[in-house]
Amino acid sequence: MQFTSEQRLDDGVLAREFTLGEIPGTLWTPESAAPAPLILMAHNNGLPKAEPRLVARARFTARCGYAVAAIDAAGCGGRPRSAADERARAELRRAMRAGEPLDGIFESFIGPLVEKAVPEWRTTLDALLSLPGVGGPVGYSGWMALGIRLAAVEPRIAAAGFFAGGYVPRAQCEEARQITVPLLMLLQWDDEGNPRQRALDLFDAFDSREKTLHANTGGHTGTPWFEVEDANRFFGRHLK
Amino acid sequence: MQFTSEQRLDDGVLAREFTLGEIPGTLWTPESAAPAPLILMAHNNGLPKAEPRLVARARFTARCGYAVAAIDAAGCGGRPRSAADERARAELRRAMRAGEPLDGIFESFIGPLVEKAVPEWRTTLDALLSLPGVGGPVGYSGWMALGIRLAAVEPRIAAAGFFAGGYVPRAQCEEARQITVPLLMLLQWDDEGNPRQRALDLFDAFDSREKTLHANTGGHTGTPWFEVEDANRFFGRHLK
Repeated sequence: MQFTSEQRLDDGVLAREFTLGEIPGTLWTPESAAPAPLILMAHNNGLPKAEPRLVARARFTARCGYAVAAIDAAGCGGRPRSAADERARAELRRAMRAGEPLDGIFESFIGPLVEKAVPEWRTTLDALLSLPGVGGPVGYSGWMALGIRLAAVEPRIAAAGFFAGGYVPRAQCEEARQITVPLLMLLQWDDEGNPRQRALDLFDAFDSREKTLHANTGGHTGTPWFEVEDANRFFGRHLK
Repeated sequence: MQFTSEQRLDDGVLAREFTLGEIPGTLWTPESAAPAPLILMAHNNGLPKAEPRLVARARFTARCGYAVAAIDAAGCGGRPRSAADERARAELRRAMRAGEPLDGIFESFIGPLVEKAVPEWRTTLDALLSLPGVGGPVGYSGWMALGIRLAAVEPRIAAAGFFAGGYVPRAQCEEARQITVPLLMLLQWDDEGNPRQRALDLFDAFDSREKTLHANTGGHTGTPWFEVEDANRFFGRHLK
């Protein structure tokens, strides 16, 4: 893991860009020198780690005493796209414009994206936990499909916050039944692009003894800011 | 309103029993002398104001800086029951033991209970707001059927927290569409006595721009304590 830049932000948070092989990432750490519990933060469907809403959540969470890390998935953010990636994205855009059903396209696009992202997040996790300012236990926050797969294969994930606003491949819908870590699922009640009933069925499927659903009025990007604070209290109960 | 007893609790909260005509009530107020926003707190289906879980919530909420009041509905708690009340309760117990459908019995029992309770709560609200230590705005917490009716007719209710664990009469299911105050609904995901889909349909029906659903695993009485803290943060956003 090589740090390529660092910036001390005006709230005291240290934001460092890193690379780990081909993987570009950002690590936000609080001002305190004591080892902080780690939260892996990913945006649904491979949105870039530099996306302003993710950065705002990451900075706030770091201010609350966590080390927060995000990486770009292959073909996402600043990473080069293969010809197959480009074709899949073009096909998705075309089908959206045409108002065609998207499930089949999402399945063939998001499924492999999750499969490829999981080993990269685990490699990143190994590297992050070897840093002096980063301690266990580990939380996960954001992209639900990736988080289900990670929580299913990665015993170091101790608590997970999922945003139910992206396509969840069939394999992860099945894997949800294996998840037992404490879980907070966030749902936008009027998210046109994401069928509400599917999210409720997924919430029902998780095997966690502590699972909580927070649903709010509004569309996909309308999650109220107090949910970021609620997520921190959730992680506070399980990681601190 | 006549105070009949008062007790300074070890957390500094002052608990006062009162009567207002036939209505017995309890008022919990914080140690601070400044006027505190008022929260009306009622248990589902007319459970008594002295019920330990309600008292624990009321004390915690008062410690957080609110005046909290609860009254017993007619025929509930320590109030005398009419012959009709006794018959309705006997019929409910019989039907529960026999495993018969309860909707019809609940409708004829809870519907009038709500109708009779609403004017008593409004009279109590008038009296409470005339006390020196109690200020506006006013929140409501608990029994959903009563809360819907109160919020529909009482413009002083500025925010409402509902527990979706009791029978909601048909009239209040309709009235839910008129409710526009900020709203937090609490649902126990595995509450055997209360059909989950009805609660989700009710959540959908409210017309509030800010409405939030918190659902947790577990049965009727399994609401985790952190939801009491979350409710206080909800009221903090709207009443303070």
